Amino acid sequence: MSGTAFGLGVGPGDPDLITVKALAILKRVPVIAYPAPDGGDSLVRAIAAPHLPGGQTEIVVSTPMVAGCHPAHDVYDRYADEISAHLSDGRDVAILCEGDPFFYGSFMYLFERLAGTHPVQVVPGVSSLGACAAAAGMPLVSRQDVLAIVPAPLGEAELEARLRDVPAAAVMKVGRHLDKVRRVLSRLGLVDCARYVERATMAGERVLPLDAMDDAEAPYFSMILVRRDGARP
Amino acid sequence: MSGTAFGLGVGPGDPDLITVKALAILKRVPVIAYPAPDGGDSLVRAIAAPHLPGGQTEIVVSTPMVAGCHPAHDVYDRYADEISAHLSDGRDVAILCEGDPFFYGSFMYLFERLAGTHPVQVVPGVSSLGACAAAAGMPLVSRQDVLAIVPAPLGEAELEARLRDVPAAAVMKVGRHLDKVRRVLSRLGLVDCARYVERATMAGERVLPLDAMDDAEAPYFSMILVRRDGARP
Repeated sequence: MSGTAFGLGVGPGDPDLITVKALAILKRVPVIAYPAPDGGDSLVRAIAAPHLPGGQTEIVVSTPMVAGCHPAHDVYDRYADEISAHLSDGRDVAILCEGDPFFYGSFMYLFERLAGTHPVQVVPGVSSLGACAAAAGMPLVSRQDVLAIVPAPLGEAELEARLRDVPAAAVMKVGRHLDKVRRVLSRLGLVDCARYVERATMAGERVLPLDAMDDAEAPYFSMILVRRDGARP
Repeated sequence: MSGTAFGLGVGPGDPDLITVKALAILKRVPVIAYPAPDGGDSLVRAIAAPHLPGGQTEIVVSTPMVAGCHPAHDVYDRYADEISAHLSDGRDVAILCEGDPFFYGSFMYLFERLAGTHPVQVVPGVSSLGACAAAAGMPLVSRQDVLAIVPAPLGEAELEARLRDVPAAAVMKVGRHLDKVRRVLSRLGLVDCARYVERATMAGERVLPLDAMDDAEAPYFSMILVRRDGARP
C-alpha cells in the first residue's frame, strides 16, 4: 500500500505558527523533504527544526536559483522519483512548505508530479500575507473589498495597471524590486497608505511606513501592504 | 497594568488547523470573546470548543445580521467597552476569529476601537483561501502570477471587470450570488477552469467543478477558485 505525501504548510516563520495538524504529521512521518537553495540553508527546515523528533530520513530538494529563472523541470522530476520510491515502499513523506503550500510555493511542482500516482494530502498553513498584515497591525480587507496580490518582479507597467484601482493590495517578493514598486506607488499616490514588512514573525522582523524605508533593496522575504483608505479600516 | 487583547486566528474550520501559538493563548486567557449571529450559534466558538479548558468568562459579540447590511457601529462600541473593562483590570482577552483575523473578518471593528488604548496582538491563522485551495487540490499562484481576491456580493459589472484579465482568482462569500458569479465566469469563458468549494476542512466539505454544481444557491462559507490555465499548474 502506498504511503501518503503531505504538502505541509509550516507557517510564515515563527515555529509556533505551525498548526496542530501539521505538527502531528511532522512528528510521525519517517521521511521529510524540503527545498533549499543550492549549497545554502533551508529556511523551511529551520522553521520546523524545533519540532523534529530526530531520526527521520531527510530529502533536500536542492534547487539551483538562477536570478529570475526557474529551476529546471528535470530537477523536480528527479526529486519526485526519490519521494515516489518512499511512497511506493509504504512510507509517508512530509514535504515542508513555508507559509501555505499553494500560495506561491514550489510545492506545486512536486504536487503535479505525485498527485496522479500516489495519495497526496495538502495541509494549509498560515501564509506570509496574514503574517505581514498581523505584524503591520493593518487589516487588509473587509466586507466587499477586492484584494490584489501582486508579485513585485512584474514589469513596471503591469505592476502599475494591477495596482491602479484596487482598494487594497499586497506586493509580494519585493527584494531588489523595491525602487520600482516605490516609483509605481508614488505615481499612483499610494505611498502614504503603504507599509513595508520584512521577515514577518521571524527574528529581525521590521515594519515601517513605506516612505520611511530608505534602503535601496529589500530582502526576498518582504512585502508591501497597501490600503487606499489608509492604514486604519 | 493593562491586559492584552489577542486577535486570535483559529483557522478555517478543522479544530486541528489552529496554530500552536493560538492554542497556547486560547488555553491560558481568563476571557474569550467571539462573534455570533443574533440568536444563533457561533461557528468560531464551535471551532475552538475542543480546545477550551473550561471556566473562562465568555463574551458573545452578538451582531444582528441584516442581509447585505453592516451591523450598526454602536454594537462594536459596546463590546469594545466590555472587553476594555477586562483589559483595564489586567485580564487578557482572546477575541476568536475564523480563519485569519485580518482577512475579511469582523475583528477589525474591535481592533480599531481597542488598539489605541490597550496592547493588541494579532495572531495570524490559516485562511479560508488556503483551506479551499488545499481541499480542491488546486495550486493557486506561483512565480509571477497575480491573484485577485474578489467578494461575490460585488455588482455584476464590477465582478466581471475584476475577473477579466487575471491569471487566478478566488471569489469569496458566494452564497446567494452563485448564479451571478456563474454568469460572469461563463461570459469570460472561465467556467471550465473554476472549482466550487464549500465548507473547506469542515464536516460537509464539498469540492466540485463549477459546471457540475447545479444548486441555485450556495452556503455563505463557499468559494470559487479560478485558474485561467486550468486546474493544473
